[in-house]
Amino acid sequence: MSEFTHVDEFGHATMVDVSEKSITQRVAKARATVKTRPDVIDAISSGRLPKGDVLAVARVAGIMAAKKTHELIPLCHPLPIEQIEVNFNIKEDEIELQTNVKSSAKTGVEMEALTAAAVTALTIYDMCKSTDREMSITNIRVIEKDGGKSGHYIFKEENP
Amino acid sequence: MSEFTHVDEFGHATMVDVSEKSITQRVAKARATVKTRPDVIDAISSGRLPKGDVLAVARVAGIMAAKKTHELIPLCHPLPIEQIEVNFNIKEDEIELQTNVKSSAKTGVEMEALTAAAVTALTIYDMCKSTDREMSITNIRVIEKDGGKSGHYIFKEENP
Amino acid sequence: MSEFTHVDEFGHATMVDVSEKSITQRVAKARATVKTRPDVIDAISSGRLPKGDVLAVARVAGIMAAKKTHELIPLCHPLPIEQIEVNFNIKEDEIELQTNVKSSAKTGVEMEALTAAAVTALTIYDMCKSTDREMSITNIRVIEKDGGKSGHYIFKEENP
Amino acid sequence: MSEFTHVDEFGHATMVDVSEKSITQRVAKARATVKTRPDVIDAISSGRLPKGDVLAVARVAGIMAAKKTHELIPLCHPLPIEQIEVNFNIKEDEIELQTNVKSSAKTGVEMEALTAAAVTALTIYDMCKSTDREMSITNIRVIEKDGGKSGHYIFKEENP
Amino acid sequence: MSEFTHVDEFGHATMVDVSEKSITQRVAKARATVKTRPDVIDAISSGRLPKGDVLAVARVAGIMAAKKTHELIPLCHPLPIEQIEVNFNIKEDEIELQTNVKSSAKTGVEMEALTAAAVTALTIYDMCKSTDREMSITNIRVIEKDGGKSGHYIFKEENP
Amino acid sequence: MSEFTHVDEFGHATMVDVSEKSITQRVAKARATVKTRPDVIDAISSGRLPKGDVLAVARVAGIMAAKKTHELIPLCHPLPIEQIEVNFNIKEDEIELQTNVKSSAKTGVEMEALTAAAVTALTIYDMCKSTDREMSITNIRVIEKDGGKSGHYIFKEENP
Repeated sequence: MSEFTHVDEFGHATMVDVSEKSITQRVAKARATVKTRPDVIDAISSGRLPKGDVLAVARVAGIMAAKKTHELIPLCHPLPIEQIEVNFNIKEDEIELQTNVKSSAKTGVEMEALTAAAVTALTIYDMCKSTDREMSITNIRVIEKDGGKSGHYIFKEENP
Repeated sequence: MSEFTHVDEFGHATMVDVSEKSITQRVAKARATVKTRPDVIDAISSGRLPKGDVLAVARVAGIMAAKKTHELIPLCHPLPIEQIEVNFNIKEDEIELQTNVKSSAKTGVEMEALTAAAVTALTIYDMCKSTDREMSITNIRVIEKDGGKSGHYIFKEENP
Repeated sequence: MSEFTHVDEFGHATMVDVSEKSITQRVAKARATVKTRPDVIDAISSGRLPKGDVLAVARVAGIMAAKKTHELIPLCHPLPIEQIEVNFNIKEDEIELQTNVKSSAKTGVEMEALTAAAVTALTIYDMCKSTDREMSITNIRVIEKDGGKSGHYIFKEENP
Repeated sequence: MSEFTHVDEFGHATMVDVSEKSITQRVAKARATVKTRPDVIDAISSGRLPKGDVLAVARVAGIMAAKKTHELIPLCHPLPIEQIEVNFNIKEDEIELQTNVKSSAKTGVEMEALTAAAVTALTIYDMCKSTDREMSITNIRVIEKDGGKSGHYIFKEENP
Repeated sequence: MSEFTHVDEFGHATMVDVSEKSITQRVAKARATVKTRPDVIDAISSGRLPKGDVLAVARVAGIMAAKKTHELIPLCHPLPIEQIEVNFNIKEDEIELQTNVKSSAKTGVEMEALTAAAVTALTIYDMCKSTDREMSITNIRVIEKDGGKSGHYIFKEENP
Repeated sequence: MSEFTHVDEFGHATMVDVSEKSITQRVAKARATVKTRPDVIDAISSGRLPKGDVLAVARVAGIMAAKKTHELIPLCHPLPIEQIEVNFNIKEDEIELQTNVKSSAKTGVEMEALTAAAVTALTIYDMCKSTDREMSITNIRVIEKDGGKSGHYIFKEENP
């Protein structure tokens, strides 16, 4: 039973007690992909929209969401976030985005990186949904983490 | 240019002006899938965890997140949400979840349904990540919407 | 099973679907009592503290908390609150407080009135706890409600 | 005048200046009781509701509320909360609940423990109010605290 | 005494009771000015920064802040905001900004327009403060409002 | 380009990475002025309103807003705020207010002091706007800061 760290001995949800852990520099990187049509990508990235505006709004949304992670995910600890970056890789019919979060904390920042990735993607969806109703968001996952007992860890590629 | 309803005539982001629209009954349904290992599914659904607790926490998180949609997605309007449901379909190595949101409003509730789906999935991830570091969240999308000018709409299946 | 309106047919928590209800004028009044020592009451109400400041802060906290009810209580609907009042009845060794909330809504505002009462009481506790560590908060309950199908209802006195 | 630590020399409310205090391990435990009818207790705990669901939702609400304490109680400091636990003691006609909060901080976590207790109780109320309109919440109080200058402290029983 | 609509008969703060008012289309426009140096204006608007990025972030911040008005200003009612626009007028050594808010509501949206203006200005300040420590924000005021009993109103120019 | 610390090498907004900075005691003081008519000042400060109530509500609003700074200003870091003070200087036709914020942090608290000042001023505006529609808020600026690399800094007077 005890492998699930958010569940106490009676099976009830609880926050992990991190009071005895030491503070280390934490880093986590996450990804998400927004799938859409090539003409929507064109409109976002180069032509009919001023450069970067959809992405600028989505980036701000992702950064602000990372700071709200502990309000959204019930068992997350509030952490003193020290940096949040959101970057985009524009492809033919999808936007891949990557987030990077740092904190000096007793627990990791994977959830902050994932929350930033999810909300950045949702914001792109919101701003383009009138043009493409069939968009979807896929492949939200952690790609790298560092800090704490487990040290540096590179995650497997989903689609090698 | 004008097809992007969140971007004004100078290309700057703005909320869509819904003041002239009429209030209709809005419904939106969305999906998300959490991919993990069969042994994690087993632990969640039937054996070493009291029935439903991970899912109970995730469901509450999804419901609460839907109510925060306009705080997370910058250009969303605050809406008087009238119902939020989150249901799960447990498969061998993944959990598929579906959200259902209703509101009597001047604009649709797709973003509320999607936000609930994303945060429900992130919460499952958070509660199981100590057991499976390689989880991912995929296929977040709207599957059905109703209300407003465009009426009832069933979305295409992603993988027919 | 069905008498519990927040629990769906499979026993899982869900918001009550209020989409088919009609909007009526809703009112709810709630009470709470903070129990402390007479010398603390003296300090708050008349002597060593400027008149009303502890109560002024507590009143603001209660009003602001009522507006956050749907963020705190997972299955509450967001409601367009139209008035919140917080009043105090200072007794020898306790402060009784009453809240009054109004909304034109599809569901009642008992939880808003109760949340305002609880947070007003907690704020009094916070501001006086360095003086009296043994304070307690009791008797939080609804005393009157109006609106909706059940109409006007006066609650029983707890201690007749 | 100076015994009220949240009031400055002119009687105006202010946060306590904790900048000169040192960080120590803080613990606080609080209680609350929800009074209802035996048949409601039966429905919650053993029969017509799947085991633990009302309590599961209430527990999540309490945990999330503890993290919002500084947003609800005006003069509370934001603290790096390290653990929040909510446990229930089901009696014949009431549910007694206990919260336990830890933080490494310059000030105590009594308000976090009390806020968690109050919101857990309010959530139980919300989920059962359609069945029992006459519920009440009583006896919200701190039962134990540790950390800081005053050290370990066990509070008096209210009803010995 | 009664001319102060947020203060009850005993002088205590309270929300205005708007329950008897009728819903009308509300509009409010507000302004704010950020004063800085010409070289900072240059960097923001045309040269060393990609066009619009500081302003894009500030615009998003203003829009999101308008939706939080009732959480920031204690006696404001939560309103169903239907549009928020933020526009900039770049001058030699200052940025003048204007907000425009619409809602169908029982009370006006001046505070929403002012809050959007203030937070947009604060965000510009934040993003430029490492370059110019002596910036200031001035002349935050309502310039036009419409809706409700008082109808259309054009405010006086501050500096005729 | 690099002088703008919130903009990354490609011109996109990002949080400043403070992970390598050391924690020092930070202080910032800010000001704002609410301009109104002498009769409104009279009503607020001495006659028809109980002493201090408008200012008491505004002070609480400012204190609570400082704690929300990182939720309002997109690129601000969440900081462990240790003190917030709000004081008023009542003049013939304006209220000048000063805020004072402390934190032990890796970055400064100017934005917290400014946000507290802006929201305190907005709250005064809200509570008096039914009496004076032509109020304005001016001269929001930092007046002093301490901590971090740049040490103690006294800002220039705007109107010497």
